Amino acid sequence: MIKIAIDCMRGDFGPEITVAGVCNALAENDNLHVMLYGNPSMIEPEITAGTDRNRVEIFASEDEITNTDHPLKSIKRKPESALVQALKAVANDEADAFVSAGSSGAIFAGSLSIVGKLPGIKRPASVGFMPTMSKTSPHCLMIDTGANIAAKPEHLAQYGRLGTVLARQMMNVENPTIGLLNIGEEDSKGNEFTKETFQLLSEDETINFRGNVEPHTIMQGSHHILLTDGFTGNIMLKSMEGMAAGILNELLENINTDGALSKESLHIIEKSVHAGINRYTNVDAGGGFVLGVQKPVVITHGAAGSTMFKNSIQLAVSLKESDAFASLNE
Amino acid sequence: MIKIAIDCMRGDFGPEITVAGVCNALAENDNLHVMLYGNPSMIEPEITAGTDRNRVEIFASEDEITNTDHPLKSIKRKPESALVQALKAVANDEADAFVSAGSSGAIFAGSLSIVGKLPGIKRPASVGFMPTMSKTSPHCLMIDTGANIAAKPEHLAQYGRLGTVLARQMMNVENPTIGLLNIGEEDSKGNEFTKETFQLLSEDETINFRGNVEPHTIMQGSHHILLTDGFTGNIMLKSMEGMAAGILNELLENINTDGALSKESLHIIEKSVHAGINRYTNVDAGGGFVLGVQKPVVITHGAAGSTMFKNSIQLAVSLKESDAFASLNE
Repeated sequence: MIKIAIDCMRGDFGPEITVAGVCNALAENDNLHVMLYGNPSMIEPEITAGTDRNRVEIFASEDEITNTDHPLKSIKRKPESALVQALKAVANDEADAFVSAGSSGAIFAGSLSIVGKLPGIKRPASVGFMPTMSKTSPHCLMIDTGANIAAKPEHLAQYGRLGTVLARQMMNVENPTIGLLNIGEEDSKGNEFTKETFQLLSEDETINFRGNVEPHTIMQGSHHILLTDGFTGNIMLKSMEGMAAGILNELLENINTDGALSKESLHIIEKSVHAGINRYTNVDAGGGFVLGVQKPVVITHGAAGSTMFKNSIQLAVSLKESDAFASLNE
Repeated sequence: MIKIAIDCMRGDFGPEITVAGVCNALAENDNLHVMLYGNPSMIEPEITAGTDRNRVEIFASEDEITNTDHPLKSIKRKPESALVQALKAVANDEADAFVSAGSSGAIFAGSLSIVGKLPGIKRPASVGFMPTMSKTSPHCLMIDTGANIAAKPEHLAQYGRLGTVLARQMMNVENPTIGLLNIGEEDSKGNEFTKETFQLLSEDETINFRGNVEPHTIMQGSHHILLTDGFTGNIMLKSMEGMAAGILNELLENINTDGALSKESLHIIEKSVHAGINRYTNVDAGGGFVLGVQKPVVITHGAAGSTMFKNSIQLAVSLKESDAFASLNE
């Protein structure tokens, strides 16, 4: 049994969405056991009929950390919150991994102070499996998606080594290729930060660094791992996700203004559009996780629906199953 | 008559594409006169039948600046190149504006050294009309799209003032709103650079600064002007364009694998997809231009086709017609 501790109270919709995601995850995976944190009177009614109650534990928590709370201070001031209680279960080895759609700042701060950093980690990062358009290499491990926004070159050098271990375990590739996000592919391109980082990565013989890569190239599945500072990475991700959702929704809106398409044709187009949106706005991948802490802490979008929340639980399961975090600790 | 000096030799396809774009632009605009620079024996055969030859001048140039030449050095070492000759025509007031699909570094360097900076300009920027998904505000003036990659806060403060003048003239809006590209919309978000820039922009009472903005929000047409350093702006633009082309091409590829759609339906979808790609990969907008020089210098994609090149010429025409550059000089 894999045990996942889940903060059910947060996200834009609370238990209505999170518990629906939990029940779907339980139905799909017989080996999943969930520890649900929050208000039992709000959680209980959302558990769907037919759910295997032997694999569900509910833990009453008295408090909540909201998006307006100060991330670090709220972790200390609200020890009875679902977020803190669930992270403590992971830290105490009662649970294998954690999932929440809550304040990413608070989850990040809590993962460091409660679950604990890996030894030797300079600055933890946010990581995600970015979807690509390649059939043979459909995901790229992206480090950092938005946590370390004042990154130094030595941080990215460390992410290169950690990412190599993660990709080996999770993507089943022996010698994962690494690209450095940049505005051009030539070695000399970029600003002071990318030039220094390029140098450090080039000197590291334990990784498979392949030089600079531009956004449109990485999207085609050119590398297994993409390294970037958290500020640039976050802008890239939000640009991609915003364009994916925006352009497909616009297509759907405009495509039949003159009524020339049949209902059946429109249905086929809608199906394709929704599949594209789910794939390229991270719904399918289920959010991201913290790199540099002892155990898997999954952070999903506040706006996640039940499908994305279910996928976030599955991401937590696969992080545990792959033994990736144990390997990082070696 | 508006006179545009055009470097016909560069871009990935040379005169075959550039001259086709020129002829289409001439056909659409009776007030356009072109000065074509390059190898006459390569330009002449590409001029389409029916083109008004009274509005075409060809100037033989003996040399070319390629993408592998050092931008600044090649401007000095290759005075006979089409790029330098055409820029000189603009500097000497023989032409009103310049267009090229050549090395953006060399065009940028040449625009500074030959056409000349505006008085008081700290660091010129690359500017483009970014397409949005809004019907009422279909473009956003984006500064910087990739030139000033080591920007300082005071550079962006200056771009805010220059952008306000440009947007007034070109977008026909009295008090254009300005957003600062960031990873969150709260005032306190971002790194040291964005925080300092935020402060400077807030203090400037001559502009209509509306705070931080995230990529997915600016795409919805939330602001008239988007400010960013050139590194982040370039990553954003390439992420958007890469996703737009990638996701729509993928949709087209996958939508009829089971053959359920009729030829007519497929045709409608293809038309919508191509319209979307043209709009969101900058083909319709026709590239960008240099902000901070005396006269309009338009830089278009090396991979531009004849439609995009034609639109680049139209962009040069509208920069001249709007008197925007004259206003910047006041």
